[in-house]
Amino acid sequence: MSDGGNNHETVRVELGARGYDILIGEGVIAAAGAEIAARLPGARAAIVTDENVAARHGAALAESLGAAGIAAATIAVSPGEKSKSFAVLEEVVDAVLAARLERGDVVVALGGGVVGDLAGFVAGIVRRGMRFVQVPTSLLAQVDSSVGGKTGINSPRGKNLVGVFQQPALVLADTGVLDTLPQREFRAGYAEVAKYGLIDRPGFFAWLEENWRDVFSGGSARRHAIAESCRAKAEMVARDEFETGDRALLNLGHTFGHALEAATGYDSARLVHGEGVAIGMALAHRFSSRLGLCSPDDARRVEAHLSAVGLPVSIADIPGALPGAERMLDYIAQDKKVARGALTFILTRGIGQSFVAKDVAASEVLSFLRTAMGEGGGR
Amino acid sequence: MSDGGNNHETVRVELGARGYDILIGEGVIAAAGAEIAARLPGARAAIVTDENVAARHGAALAESLGAAGIAAATIAVSPGEKSKSFAVLEEVVDAVLAARLERGDVVVALGGGVVGDLAGFVAGIVRRGMRFVQVPTSLLAQVDSSVGGKTGINSPRGKNLVGVFQQPALVLADTGVLDTLPQREFRAGYAEVAKYGLIDRPGFFAWLEENWRDVFSGGSARRHAIAESCRAKAEMVARDEFETGDRALLNLGHTFGHALEAATGYDSARLVHGEGVAIGMALAHRFSSRLGLCSPDDARRVEAHLSAVGLPVSIADIPGALPGAERMLDYIAQDKKVARGALTFILTRGIGQSFVAKDVAASEVLSFLRTAMGEGGGR
Repeated sequence: MSDGGNNHETVRVELGARGYDILIGEGVIAAAGAEIAARLPGARAAIVTDENVAARHGAALAESLGAAGIAAATIAVSPGEKSKSFAVLEEVVDAVLAARLERGDVVVALGGGVVGDLAGFVAGIVRRGMRFVQVPTSLLAQVDSSVGGKTGINSPRGKNLVGVFQQPALVLADTGVLDTLPQREFRAGYAEVAKYGLIDRPGFFAWLEENWRDVFSGGSARRHAIAESCRAKAEMVARDEFETGDRALLNLGHTFGHALEAATGYDSARLVHGEGVAIGMALAHRFSSRLGLCSPDDARRVEAHLSAVGLPVSIADIPGALPGAERMLDYIAQDKKVARGALTFILTRGIGQSFVAKDVAASEVLSFLRTAMGEGGGR
Repeated sequence: MSDGGNNHETVRVELGARGYDILIGEGVIAAAGAEIAARLPGARAAIVTDENVAARHGAALAESLGAAGIAAATIAVSPGEKSKSFAVLEEVVDAVLAARLERGDVVVALGGGVVGDLAGFVAGIVRRGMRFVQVPTSLLAQVDSSVGGKTGINSPRGKNLVGVFQQPALVLADTGVLDTLPQREFRAGYAEVAKYGLIDRPGFFAWLEENWRDVFSGGSARRHAIAESCRAKAEMVARDEFETGDRALLNLGHTFGHALEAATGYDSARLVHGEGVAIGMALAHRFSSRLGLCSPDDARRVEAHLSAVGLPVSIADIPGALPGAERMLDYIAQDKKVARGALTFILTRGIGQSFVAKDVAASEVLSFLRTAMGEGGGR
């Protein structure tokens, strides 16, 4: 819903007693204290953030909490994926306990996906579950990781293998803070925005094709794109909170994408998550077209839009050497979303017509990858 | 309900989609494979246990699983409370991932409270939640910690401060394995059995006063006492899964008890948990009597029964030096069940008439402790 004259939109995640609001708009960080105090009266807070975000937005958030009478400790971790580890988890848990917070108190995650995943996990396990508020500061976190309650850390055996479902009590997506993001990071987050159109919102995808420049430059188009993305994710999460069915659609582009991230050793100089998803979505459409599920025109249309915004769309767009198609298939089969050895993919019948395909034959995938990677034949 | 001619009783924990059965009886470990296969078809397993229990009961459980076609890895940790640490948690998580178990697979806890708490936490966080089965091998675990879904590890800042609520899919309480327990450990577990009578089952308490010798020697009286305890706990858990209200009654004897455990540095040579609870229950009744809430006769009756079975009932029963009453109050105020500085106690109006008392004045507690500890006046 729109709040009319107000400068933010509210999207509700309908999860019964665990339902919550996402407030989206420029400057909502300034309202954080009042919004938290209204929802969690009497709660004290620990702000979990990273050192970069703390320097940029920490003071504004702390000030807003302070003005609402919320005492807050700040816990800053090193920026980057390495902080999603057992060692950092233990440190942050200890810091929250050191602040003597109790079960009714709140952990506030201020940062991107790493901070949100880590802080949410901390909130889920300290005293068997504290309250939790997300203040995402990257586009990726605003449209994806801050909504839906998936939290966790990485294991040497794979990413996000350890964690809990811990729904936040509130998400505050300040669209203004995105102005300070590097262009590449904003673009990577945009891949997840486009994803919602490709899953089941063809009208939204068409709107993005027309208006993506305005989304990049800010203002009401950006707010609309983020709100629409949050609405899409909220509906999916409400239908399937614990990812036992339909929620898997959110993995469109992610099976190929995760394999590419693994194949590049998670080297962000070569590939970041959203770029992997962009290539993955292009591949998922091309693979669907090859299987006769969707028209080649749709696959080309997806590629054209992602390319227009500056995202990579083919494996050849990744700088540096990659392992061969056989090895890529191994990465895909190790993906944790693969149930009991069967290959599960999100495929599509066209723009906005994605579906969960179980039992996709490994031989089909391998043959497609060989083509896509230029082994024994062009695209 | 009783299963008639069968040699086990089934108690149901009514938690909707998360509801589960507790099977209680001699030899139920031999049925583990069939019972798990019936409830979780196709699941593979990791047995988490400690080295002592593994030596005694590991083969029987593994054989039962094998006979039902359930492949199982065994992960054995060091016995004792020290295994409830981040370091051991990380090791066990890694071992479960190394066994390539997935979300639909099951972690089976074979052991006492430490193993159950640790394994349940692991099940709660690997892949954001696997299935979980409890096979408790101590009386304490059978009547208390294996039922209700509280799991976790200790922090240097306190016991059980980190964990999740993770309900098992099944609890198998084999009353036969208790024959191998040291007498002191069985007695300590019995304190929690008596607790259920004292909370709200005066008839059960009276039955225990008559039949406790039979409970100690085994057979149907033991099975009845364990089943009745599980029923009591199951009702409490069904009423208040996440301990926001009535479930706190289960802490009868625990506020004083935890303080005594902390005061003895968790030295099990001096005091084990159940002994702390026995003294704590005696103190809670004496304190209630002093506050004019229950009759001195009831307090004396509680002490008489606990003493009869060989449990300690007063602070003077603990060997070695203890800190003074002031320091004991600090331990009580640090207890994590203390909400926002107010002292919360479980007090009673008589046998089986316990209630949650919030805002108990610290000065009353201190004055009671001074008397109980013989500072400036006898009991």
